[in-house]
Amino acid sequence: MTIGIIGLGLMGGSLGMDLRGLPFVKKVIGHDHNAAHCTAALNFGLVDEIVDFEALLQCDTIVLSVPVDAIIAILQQMPGKIKPDSTVIDLGSTKARIAQSIPAAIRENVVTAHPMTGTENFGPEAAISGLYKDKVVVLCDMEESGQLQQETAVRLFSGLFMRLHYMRASEHDRHAALISHMPHAISYSLANTVLNQEDKYNILALAAGGFRSMSRLAKSSPVMWEDIFRQNKEHLLEAINLFEDELDAMKKAIRDEAWDEIHKRLETGKKLHEII
Amino acid sequence: MTIGIIGLGLMGGSLGMDLRGLPFVKKVIGHDHNAAHCTAALNFGLVDEIVDFEALLQCDTIVLSVPVDAIIAILQQMPGKIKPDSTVIDLGSTKARIAQSIPAAIRENVVTAHPMTGTENFGPEAAISGLYKDKVVVLCDMEESGQLQQETAVRLFSGLFMRLHYMRASEHDRHAALISHMPHAISYSLANTVLNQEDKYNILALAAGGFRSMSRLAKSSPVMWEDIFRQNKEHLLEAINLFEDELDAMKKAIRDEAWDEIHKRLETGKKLHEII
Repeated sequence: MTIGIIGLGLMGGSLGMDLRGLPFVKKVIGHDHNAAHCTAALNFGLVDEIVDFEALLQCDTIVLSVPVDAIIAILQQMPGKIKPDSTVIDLGSTKARIAQSIPAAIRENVVTAHPMTGTENFGPEAAISGLYKDKVVVLCDMEESGQLQQETAVRLFSGLFMRLHYMRASEHDRHAALISHMPHAISYSLANTVLNQEDKYNILALAAGGFRSMSRLAKSSPVMWEDIFRQNKEHLLEAINLFEDELDAMKKAIRDEAWDEIHKRLETGKKLHEII
Repeated sequence: MTIGIIGLGLMGGSLGMDLRGLPFVKKVIGHDHNAAHCTAALNFGLVDEIVDFEALLQCDTIVLSVPVDAIIAILQQMPGKIKPDSTVIDLGSTKARIAQSIPAAIRENVVTAHPMTGTENFGPEAAISGLYKDKVVVLCDMEESGQLQQETAVRLFSGLFMRLHYMRASEHDRHAALISHMPHAISYSLANTVLNQEDKYNILALAAGGFRSMSRLAKSSPVMWEDIFRQNKEHLLEAINLFEDELDAMKKAIRDEAWDEIHKRLETGKKLHEII
């Protein structure tokens, strides 16, 4: 089959790079509204060819790896333009609003997926081979997709050695808010707190590995994360509230010098690492 | 010189491992109140020899790499027991309370230092070579230490290829609260929030690199961090308040759908990475 990728940044570029090596993939075709990304994607060997938007819609399988608001916009333009049996896979980090926005005429064509992978870097120069390997991909509302499209998505993600999980889109968004989106809001807020309080000299002198790993996510693309925060607003607010309650309880215990309680909180937090 | 290390965990063990190779170090002697740590330290080659507490106090240079409350307790036992010109270096992560607690009789013997390095792992099995190399060590209130002790500390940390920074102890604690201690409180609180809301299956399925790096610090030793929170209580509470104000402002902007403001907050947070 021919696979068309719209959006040749970290996710789309890394995908193209590894799909090119699969036996059932004839050609990987790319499109990006940023001309520099197109040139870079060709130079780095992320895709075989660059075409314009209309031509890309003729691919057998189309992957949307653009910010979540752009995914919704592109889906609206697809009815009547894609091939009747084509498979459209979106890789957005939020799923409910995207799922709701799919035009009825192409609902069976679309598979909504969220690969749980990435780095804080972005753009085609950030693309790396193996980004998807051994990672989880969450497939949402799969029963709404056609039989052929379900099979194509499974074949493609399995070909990349991903582990497949199935979830309702709304359920996905609640979990993703807690485990991914809220931690990003924390990382950006932590970076801002320190930047407002400290000069460059002290940050450089005192930042050990801990601070670096806590602020790493604040390197992520502001455009992409603004979109995700917008699309998953309610779940994100709920997750931030839950976190704030927890931090407040920790703060109160420190203020009250309730060291036994603090010790208990540190011990329970540490249990997370029996899981991951 | 002979160097005695009290506390053979990650910090003390890694220190012993690399000090053993230095030309001016005759012997590295260890002591740990945990007998299993002593055996492990010998097996892993972290020290040349294990001795009891009283014997260790006869070393030319004594390094205290135990939790901060234990550092204070040990300092109180030193007057009259250490050699008159010995150098005592403490590696505690808080500095003001330790500095205040040093008995007047041995004030010139002591150098208070904070090496800005570490990992989330602990115990002698966590010790690694090169942990100190190219990292910053903050030396506090150096003018209070004797000439010989200042020189010994500089020689030792320079021998490990560390970069030396000088600060008042109180100033150190304010900065460390912001850049290290508060981020640990956040990481533990994040871990607890997710553990309270999610089952193991979802955490495993959905935890990508971002969540792993945000919760990594929650693997740290609860005993050690309870001590640090206690010793740096006021600065830590102040730092948590500053962070909460920042996160609250982000939350409010999300609730009000003030996307321009959110974008600006993400862009400014991202600037941190022009520094580190």
